[in-house]
Amino acid sequence: MEKTRLEYPTGNVEKETKMEIETYPADNYIREASSNVKPQKSVQNWLIGNPLQTADAPNQTIGKLIGLAVFASDALSSTAYASQEILIILAYAGTQALGYVFPISLAIVTLMAIVTFSYEQTVHAYPGGGGAYIVARDNLGELPAQVAGAALLTDYVLTVAVSISSGVAQITSAFPTLYHYRVELAVAMVMFVMLINLRGVKESGMAFAIPTYFFVVTMFITVGVGFFRYFSGTLGTVVNPPVFHTDGIVSAITPFLLLHAFSSGTAALTGIEAISNGITAFKEPRSHNAGITLIWMACILATLFLGISFLVGPIHAVPSEAETVISQLGRTIFGGQGLMYLALIAGTAVILIMAANTAFADFPRLSALQANDGYLPRQMTFRGSRLVYSRGIVTLAVVSSFLIIIFQASVTRLIPLYAIGVFLSFTLSQTGMARRWWKSGHLKNDETIEEAGSTVAYDRQWIFKLCVNGFGAVLTLIVMFVFAITKFHDGAWVIVILIPVIVFIFYSIHKHYKKVADRLSLQNYTSLNIKRHRVIVLIAGVHRGSLAALTYALTLTNDVTSIHVSIDPDESRKVREKWETYGQGTRLVILDSPYRLLIEPVMEYISHILSIRQPNEIVTVVVPQFVPHNWWENLLHNQTALMLRFGFLFKPGLVIIEVPYQV
Amino acid sequence: MEKTRLEYPTGNVEKETKMEIETYPADNYIREASSNVKPQKSVQNWLIGNPLQTADAPNQTIGKLIGLAVFASDALSSTAYASQEILIILAYAGTQALGYVFPISLAIVTLMAIVTFSYEQTVHAYPGGGGAYIVARDNLGELPAQVAGAALLTDYVLTVAVSISSGVAQITSAFPTLYHYRVELAVAMVMFVMLINLRGVKESGMAFAIPTYFFVVTMFITVGVGFFRYFSGTLGTVVNPPVFHTDGIVSAITPFLLLHAFSSGTAALTGIEAISNGITAFKEPRSHNAGITLIWMACILATLFLGISFLVGPIHAVPSEAETVISQLGRTIFGGQGLMYLALIAGTAVILIMAANTAFADFPRLSALQANDGYLPRQMTFRGSRLVYSRGIVTLAVVSSFLIIIFQASVTRLIPLYAIGVFLSFTLSQTGMARRWWKSGHLKNDETIEEAGSTVAYDRQWIFKLCVNGFGAVLTLIVMFVFAITKFHDGAWVIVILIPVIVFIFYSIHKHYKKVADRLSLQNYTSLNIKRHRVIVLIAGVHRGSLAALTYALTLTNDVTSIHVSIDPDESRKVREKWETYGQGTRLVILDSPYRLLIEPVMEYISHILSIRQPNEIVTVVVPQFVPHNWWENLLHNQTALMLRFGFLFKPGLVIIEVPYQV
Repeated sequence: MEKTRLEYPTGNVEKETKMEIETYPADNYIREASSNVKPQKSVQNWLIGNPLQTADAPNQTIGKLIGLAVFASDALSSTAYASQEILIILAYAGTQALGYVFPISLAIVTLMAIVTFSYEQTVHAYPGGGGAYIVARDNLGELPAQVAGAALLTDYVLTVAVSISSGVAQITSAFPTLYHYRVELAVAMVMFVMLINLRGVKESGMAFAIPTYFFVVTMFITVGVGFFRYFSGTLGTVVNPPVFHTDGIVSAITPFLLLHAFSSGTAALTGIEAISNGITAFKEPRSHNAGITLIWMACILATLFLGISFLVGPIHAVPSEAETVISQLGRTIFGGQGLMYLALIAGTAVILIMAANTAFADFPRLSALQANDGYLPRQMTFRGSRLVYSRGIVTLAVVSSFLIIIFQASVTRLIPLYAIGVFLSFTLSQTGMARRWWKSGHLKNDETIEEAGSTVAYDRQWIFKLCVNGFGAVLTLIVMFVFAITKFHDGAWVIVILIPVIVFIFYSIHKHYKKVADRLSLQNYTSLNIKRHRVIVLIAGVHRGSLAALTYALTLTNDVTSIHVSIDPDESRKVREKWETYGQGTRLVILDSPYRLLIEPVMEYISHILSIRQPNEIVTVVVPQFVPHNWWENLLHNQTALMLRFGFLFKPGLVIIEVPYQV
Repeated sequence: MEKTRLEYPTGNVEKETKMEIETYPADNYIREASSNVKPQKSVQNWLIGNPLQTADAPNQTIGKLIGLAVFASDALSSTAYASQEILIILAYAGTQALGYVFPISLAIVTLMAIVTFSYEQTVHAYPGGGGAYIVARDNLGELPAQVAGAALLTDYVLTVAVSISSGVAQITSAFPTLYHYRVELAVAMVMFVMLINLRGVKESGMAFAIPTYFFVVTMFITVGVGFFRYFSGTLGTVVNPPVFHTDGIVSAITPFLLLHAFSSGTAALTGIEAISNGITAFKEPRSHNAGITLIWMACILATLFLGISFLVGPIHAVPSEAETVISQLGRTIFGGQGLMYLALIAGTAVILIMAANTAFADFPRLSALQANDGYLPRQMTFRGSRLVYSRGIVTLAVVSSFLIIIFQASVTRLIPLYAIGVFLSFTLSQTGMARRWWKSGHLKNDETIEEAGSTVAYDRQWIFKLCVNGFGAVLTLIVMFVFAITKFHDGAWVIVILIPVIVFIFYSIHKHYKKVADRLSLQNYTSLNIKRHRVIVLIAGVHRGSLAALTYALTLTNDVTSIHVSIDPDESRKVREKWETYGQGTRLVILDSPYRLLIEPVMEYISHILSIRQPNEIVTVVVPQFVPHNWWENLLHNQTALMLRFGFLFKPGLVIIEVPYQV
């Protein structure tokens, strides 16, 4: 079976055809032809670039320094809002409660250390990439995997909504006149990131490294200068702080309030799992490099988060939709809106947009993975003209834009929906790892189990590793419950309802695909035996188009019946008269339609014919289909053929033939 | 050819089938079957009522008193805004200009008398109904008829927009808190009138008579009491009048200003032609009754219009979007917002809504007429389940709602678009009548000409009648130009551009239908001669569905080629292996698609096959079509079959077969 190009005839057409048919070798009846059909030039090409061949799939690896830039933006960007979100909850209890910002941040950093340590183990166990979905699927089974999938997809959507909203909030802090257009700005940014991703981001390192390190450096300078001025006593407080609106709610400092504030702050942990998804992108030794990068990332994140949480106290920062805490910090530390202030705002805004970009990389990949497992529509596995999972990208953009519009680009209103999904996936991932160590511990030396694509080998340190992941799992589970309870009324209930619903949808989809596969399976297949054709031709009027359909029908069988639905008696009379001349002696049935319906009488007649169908008889409907020259001409004709097609498709055992007539 | 009911088999199915085929008499090969398929119960039925049979078309005639109620609402309702619109233009020139309201109204009433007299002649000449479209078509030819059609359709849309907006303005004058929701209210009312009309208004007289005569009586009482108080010196002026916003525009009393005000006031003439459309609805002697009703109507209209125009002066009414002049008049005459005031407002609002209803009767009828002549999409002639031209009704509702939203339900902003269409149709109608009298005068006694459906007979008074209609035509033409020039900047330019565009569209549609009819004509028809089938089966995978399609294809011909587009090499390998077992020895071509396109490689291959087609050979594409159980399952499958269908339809000479496989 050699691969031959599809060759176009150049000389005598008829001869060529005959040759092709006659010389077709009997032993070579399966042929491969290569087609080079490119998608046509279009606005789409201009927007997202020229199409790429499947063989062009990129393949490159990166070092630790670049790796940190690529994978850390999501995690590091949360420093832009985590401290502020703690502040907001505490602000309801008055100024003396603000002293708790730093202790709560310390607790969060402790949690962060444990989660990081847990993931560090995952990175080594899954050198091929170990996101929560894969770890749960391999070690815990389908249901936990789908729950993790639902949690992660929700989380990605929220990452985009929260990051872009926070990015816009930074910009509107510096340019308050834009505040009125924050929703439009945010949606435009989502569309921008979507386009970039539809083009296909070749995770080209430098494009990521520059803004990430710019952000890290400006943040360290800000925090550094802040501490210097704090210790030298020249820090001062925010000039013209925004006003905090309590909306009449005043709260006491209760354990619930502190847990509530803690929950808000856990947003700082989002994105910490990013590296475990992308281990394959690292240079060898992959796991080693990825692990070290993970630890660096956690250290930078913890330092910046603690620094900011410490400094918001002495400057008397006020949480507000109108000006972010980062902006207040910058103004106070740099004494006004100078160059350093603008650099801080720009760096923060850019890293937040890049965090959204991370979700745009992960959501389509995970949804394609789930679609491949049959839990999401198959179309999600289709790679668009630029070799990216374009449907996943568009879905993410649409859903997150929808959220931004609903929540008016307010980070504070989005946050209660955010972290449940993250912590649920943390829990499932850590539980999966714990299970894996348990299995590993019960193997003999050098023995391995192949399980659903991953290899489990004996590990001497299994008890220690089991304890680390187990402890991580329990802790994140507790945090998840704390979050769900304290933020239930703020909006967390949405997610508590949504995740089971999504999982249910996943299973419905899976059931459907399984059913289809069973029904189409060729087990016990016996070929159909068509002995007799019965053909029905639909006739709106007697003209060249319908007579072409009749002629075609007569090549199938002699048992041809033409049907005309009578709405206008004059028209029907004409049809009957012309039929005497042009009907080739075939039967014509005129169906009276007192209610001027077109489709329904035909459907009734055909149902009748189908009900008296004999074994091995097949019923075929021939529909003459008018084909216009220009699209708008379609508007001038009843789309009866199309409607009949959809009507007939639901009749079992009915074949539809459309004979087009061009004008 | 006796009419037999479609009978369903009750006993042995196979026997019944055979019987039906065998007993089919040779001389009775054309059969009529009566189907009683009713549209299914649905929300639609609940909204617009149960479907009606074609035979149920209503047929009743009405007397003069009821006829006035049915046809006068459009004309009489213009008293609600005509005086106000004159006032608005004059108000820019300060208070001394307001003295011109009454003289201008007198000029308009003179014009009204001439137009009425002209139409009275039309009513007698066209006892079968003589709208401007029919009169122009019969006497002036296609182009003037289509211009009249364009003018009238535009006019009907504006009648709805203006009347409903004015109706809402009356209501918001009495209940100012509703002013903020005027657009929503107006659109809701359009929808309400649309529903009523989709239900089918049996022009049942009483339903019209009550509100029309209620309006006429309250208006006469208002004007009567107004004059009584004026002459007894107790009338006074408007308490708390609304403020007139000049927007800084101050104008002198120039001839242009007066003509401008006159143009605005000509809105009073709209609707005067309604009776000439509906002559057939009158009791015999039809023309006589219709003519007398027309004169009554004009008298009532003239009296009320002059009365209101006179009274607005002494009470110092102020034109305003916030409170209508009618409301100010009512408040002043009845001394506050008592019962009589509310009756006036209610009567005015209801008659305005009924005026919109008139347009809902005329627009669909005219558009069906034009569609029947081939100048509008044929679908407009289709009568819906309630025997009304439902598509015309919905079109009118949508377009007028759109106008209401664009112009924010402001009568003053809609008026400049209004009267051009009306006067253009007046001019064409009168010119057509003049031409008719001219022809009539050149006939011998008792001689008649049959011309495009109307009979022209000799008329002794032809010179007088020619002069009346000719004068009417010239006068309305002049008014149209005055209107177009004085209101050009206010919005009349839209209509000046729109009407030629609409006429162009009419002609494009007509050209298309003529082309289709020519191409489908059976002149010189020779039957197709299909000698050879070449069949291409599209195979996504080898399963029961695609093998059923293959089996079907093999009943047509032996020349079957199956095509598989290869996107995933693994998938293609599987297809190739399975084909060896299940392919029934037929050819399989695997088309490589480096850009992951599905449709395009198939299209390219088929174009190639079509290009080497032999004479009398027909190429057929068989598409296995997945048919889901529930509609939502469609979302889980690529709609490749549907996309291919649309792609293939534009290839000449290609037949498409869809073999469905149910799951």
